[in-house]
Amino acid sequence: MAGPSWQAVREAHERIRARIHRTPVMTSEQMDQMSGARLFFKCENLQKTGSFKIRGATNAVFSMSEQEAARGVATVSSGNHAAALSLAARWRGVPAWVVMPSNTPQVKRQAVQAYGGQIRFCEPTMKGREEALRALLEETGAALVHPYDDDRVIAGQATAAKEFFEDGPELDYLLAPVSGGGLLSGTGIAAKSLNAGVRVIGCEPKNADDAYRSLQMGEIQPSINSNTIADGLRAQLAPRTFAILQERVDRIVLVSEDEIVQAMRWLWERMKLVVEPSGAVSAAVAVFRKLQWEGKSVGVILSGGNVEMKN
Amino acid sequence: MAGPSWQAVREAHERIRARIHRTPVMTSEQMDQMSGARLFFKCENLQKTGSFKIRGATNAVFSMSEQEAARGVATVSSGNHAAALSLAARWRGVPAWVVMPSNTPQVKRQAVQAYGGQIRFCEPTMKGREEALRALLEETGAALVHPYDDDRVIAGQATAAKEFFEDGPELDYLLAPVSGGGLLSGTGIAAKSLNAGVRVIGCEPKNADDAYRSLQMGEIQPSINSNTIADGLRAQLAPRTFAILQERVDRIVLVSEDEIVQAMRWLWERMKLVVEPSGAVSAAVAVFRKLQWEGKSVGVILSGGNVEMKN
Repeated sequence: MAGPSWQAVREAHERIRARIHRTPVMTSEQMDQMSGARLFFKCENLQKTGSFKIRGATNAVFSMSEQEAARGVATVSSGNHAAALSLAARWRGVPAWVVMPSNTPQVKRQAVQAYGGQIRFCEPTMKGREEALRALLEETGAALVHPYDDDRVIAGQATAAKEFFEDGPELDYLLAPVSGGGLLSGTGIAAKSLNAGVRVIGCEPKNADDAYRSLQMGEIQPSINSNTIADGLRAQLAPRTFAILQERVDRIVLVSEDEIVQAMRWLWERMKLVVEPSGAVSAAVAVFRKLQWEGKSVGVILSGGNVEMKN
Repeated sequence: MAGPSWQAVREAHERIRARIHRTPVMTSEQMDQMSGARLFFKCENLQKTGSFKIRGATNAVFSMSEQEAARGVATVSSGNHAAALSLAARWRGVPAWVVMPSNTPQVKRQAVQAYGGQIRFCEPTMKGREEALRALLEETGAALVHPYDDDRVIAGQATAAKEFFEDGPELDYLLAPVSGGGLLSGTGIAAKSLNAGVRVIGCEPKNADDAYRSLQMGEIQPSINSNTIADGLRAQLAPRTFAILQERVDRIVLVSEDEIVQAMRWLWERMKLVVEPSGAVSAAVAVFRKLQWEGKSVGVILSGGNVEMKN
């Protein structure tokens, strides 16, 4: 089997348990009525740094030897992984560098800086990012922690589903968003290790359906021109995550932009939860009844809550 | 001592426990840093119907004899109590009537109707409300369930603080918003019964400071011309709640409109929680360090989350 072993996930959980929140599992009768199923929401929007990303980042940073960690860690990200890696590095007392496109919004820069991460700006192109990262790694000797193409990160993200199975009811379905595939890979590994019968569903915007197409075609399809409000879901699969999804995920289900926005609104109005668009994609699959699950138990991972508050 | 006994609170909890959510207690390092204390948030915004009001309403409705309940229940309210009483009545299978001013916003009418409550509109004056209620009670024989001037309601609201003490750490301070005084009365009764040393603090907008003035003057002061974003906190104390507050509350602390708005924003951004302005007043007292509690444990009741989502 591809990716980290179940034993690696258990070790990851022991490693990070005392640092992260054990996020609550919530229910809503109104959401149940819309979905036709019994829904259980794992609230990673309430996780430290506002998303599940702190799980994988913390596991990676605390898996390193003293010597490796001492030179610091680095990544390319403008989003939740950048903030999470910065905090995990601060916990370990080592520097974190983040390569970010020069057009990254102020609010995302501040999130990284608030956790002590150091930003290196680059041209907002694939080439610009790669060159900036290479230069940074050479200069600092820092260890790269990729947002998802890393077994330590995947094992960390898997702990969300592990807690879900430990704290929740027996699930028939488990829904998680997919972008680069780190969370969904970890979810698949945990789910199939703990309950072979559960159906693992990846949730993706129609407007960024590269994971859907990749699993259909049997090879990785590029994520191009994706224009979705779920801006955290525009990455494309790595060979590592693609292999895990092929083994562990039952299917990918798509939702429209309108469905994502409506799901966010319902999470707000009916559950009083702030969830970012990328985090609401799995809720959209649930409440718009994308599968035949009448009366079944459906777990929904709400992956993050970092959305800017407008006046 | 005025108000319901501790035994009545325990009975209320047994009566309502299976119907309500045991809401989570949440923490935030960022909020701790702002307050200087260790903060613990009791999330009644995540309660059924979106506020603590379901506790008191459910206790009142399920305290009635079959004969009394069969004629239905009635109240005057345009807010959270109206929705809560409607749902509690539906659980018991009896009708609920709500007298509402004719200028009540559509969203609040819908909340009552969604839970099966029947609305009677009245002139938006004190006299209009009283006449409409009297006519309704005569016509239907329904039992009045006042939003706060009722020992059954107060005993129900007290169960939020009871759970807080059962699930949380030992608290040095306990903060709750005050309007008519139902929640704060119940909080005082539970707190002083469980831990005589805890300081119970009422939290009120400067722009609706009648409870503050009432405790200062030693007699109930009217709530007039209150103009606050915390529109759930414009009621005035009843003799019953005033007497309880005199015995059980250590002091009332005031916050500005700006502080309320800022606290709401921080609850959103940093804790991913939707909290209504009235529900954020206690958080405002906490994060703006209104008391000298450096390093102490401070419990904060977030009373509700029913705020309209704008596009």
